[in-house]
Amino acid sequence: MAVYTHVNDEDLRHFLENYELGLVTSFKGIAEGVENSNFLLSTETGNFILTLYEKRVSTQELPFFLDLMAYLSNQGIPCPTPVVGLDGGTSGELCGRPAALVTFLDGMSAHRPTAKHCAEVGQALAHMHKAGREFGLSRDNDLSIAGWRDLVSQCRDHADEAEAGLENLLAEELSFLQQSWPTGLPSGVIHADLFPDNVFFLADKLSGVIDFYFACNDFFAYDLAICLNAWCFERDGSFNATKAHQLTAGYNRVRPLEDREISAMPVLARGAAFRFLLTRLYDWENQVDGAMVRPKDPGEYIRKLRFHRRVKGPGEYGLS
Amino acid sequence: MAVYTHVNDEDLRHFLENYELGLVTSFKGIAEGVENSNFLLSTETGNFILTLYEKRVSTQELPFFLDLMAYLSNQGIPCPTPVVGLDGGTSGELCGRPAALVTFLDGMSAHRPTAKHCAEVGQALAHMHKAGREFGLSRDNDLSIAGWRDLVSQCRDHADEAEAGLENLLAEELSFLQQSWPTGLPSGVIHADLFPDNVFFLADKLSGVIDFYFACNDFFAYDLAICLNAWCFERDGSFNATKAHQLTAGYNRVRPLEDREISAMPVLARGAAFRFLLTRLYDWENQVDGAMVRPKDPGEYIRKLRFHRRVKGPGEYGLS
Repeated sequence: MAVYTHVNDEDLRHFLENYELGLVTSFKGIAEGVENSNFLLSTETGNFILTLYEKRVSTQELPFFLDLMAYLSNQGIPCPTPVVGLDGGTSGELCGRPAALVTFLDGMSAHRPTAKHCAEVGQALAHMHKAGREFGLSRDNDLSIAGWRDLVSQCRDHADEAEAGLENLLAEELSFLQQSWPTGLPSGVIHADLFPDNVFFLADKLSGVIDFYFACNDFFAYDLAICLNAWCFERDGSFNATKAHQLTAGYNRVRPLEDREISAMPVLARGAAFRFLLTRLYDWENQVDGAMVRPKDPGEYIRKLRFHRRVKGPGEYGLS
Repeated sequence: MAVYTHVNDEDLRHFLENYELGLVTSFKGIAEGVENSNFLLSTETGNFILTLYEKRVSTQELPFFLDLMAYLSNQGIPCPTPVVGLDGGTSGELCGRPAALVTFLDGMSAHRPTAKHCAEVGQALAHMHKAGREFGLSRDNDLSIAGWRDLVSQCRDHADEAEAGLENLLAEELSFLQQSWPTGLPSGVIHADLFPDNVFFLADKLSGVIDFYFACNDFFAYDLAICLNAWCFERDGSFNATKAHQLTAGYNRVRPLEDREISAMPVLARGAAFRFLLTRLYDWENQVDGAMVRPKDPGEYIRKLRFHRRVKGPGEYGLS
């Protein structure tokens, strides 16, 4: 949650020559997003978010993310819409970084999501899955089953420093997931990072979905499994079955899950917990001194993974 | 430029029960201000800045700063206006910190101020000095001549690590300033930190003055001397006499300087350079590992001080 690059009024003026937004009335760096620098830009014609892509998002991948937002937004999904420049493109360069302008969305993240929020998220996720069906581009999920072996080998040596026995747990889980990962489930474009930080609400109604920079092609049900992990655990580590039921029921109302998706949910939920455990562990093991962002606790996802390993069937996720 | 304290939707909702601002439409931490956490709050009724006072500003001093902003704003100075709560006060507590809401000001800081900007700043400074004349509260300037001896003794031992010979320079300058510091100049409430970051422009017209948390009672001309230091040097260290002339002429148009203020300007400019040199040196010597804000370079103010030491008379500042 930091601004890595300072953009001054002259840099901005030059960048905005490619847009017809009118007089700039305000421009402020905002503490939003973990890996990019974000600015709130207000002009005579509206409010916008300017994003400078700092590292992970490559220039080659940017069109996928921006075109996806434009496409989904056009289908009625409340997500940021990239602003088209006078050059016809939706991105440019600013302070040596790829940069893009998108429309501003009202709303606030829910710090402590309720069951009602979970129902809203489930519905919105299903709408997004349906809306993206005809989207013309695709992007592999490099943080799914195919990428986990590499991550495990990068993290295993120091894993027990995070928690005793973790190295064994990683090896065991990787092997289980490789044997049990489903194939051929309904798939398409997924958000892949729909955490509470990335969803806005206005008076408890979902008003916006942001941060599409992990979006990729994968199983729809895997996206729902990520949400089960991100939205349905309480702070004390307990799993809230009511929230899970509301999340999955909200999803089902818009896009009914197939039987094979339902029966795969316990494995998908383990995989989703494993994916976030691995990247958090990697970031935790590779902390940079003086970094502006503190790595998230990998322990949270170790506990979530252990929960899913004890689950007996999809009923525990409110599915049947 | 960082957000030190995370304020979530629940914390905010509780804090806003004391205000009648309508539905919150957006709330974002912004990278503005060095020592406090700032948030941009939008509601049905307008845009506001929420500030959490992290350390330097004490609860006892807060009324001075907030009442001053309310007073100046009421006199037509384009500065933030504190929002009065249902309890009749202009501050409260949020996440264990003193907190206040003020109105949002449009505009952007000038990264590379022009002579035109300097003229605007000179005028606004003089307006502020005149507007604050009847303000009922006062606050000593603990960062003026009386405070410098202490700062020098805290910094001198490691001063030569910043630049060879600096320890001697500090002692020599302190002794000169103590002998030469003027007395009895016209005084009142001054901003005391009117750097380009704290001034907003809209299409080259000054639209706002922010960050009154160094405001205090001192010589008006000392405030102008701070601006000479902050606005009239180029990046290469050279002094831009045109900008100085525009700054002082802008000031003079609104509040004509007295002869004794003009003749004191070379000493006041040395004092102002010395004050920022000392606090930057202190911060540089007392860096905290992993701090979110990098200390500013004390070297910039060593060079500015050396410039003022060579000045022969007020004419070099565009005054006569």
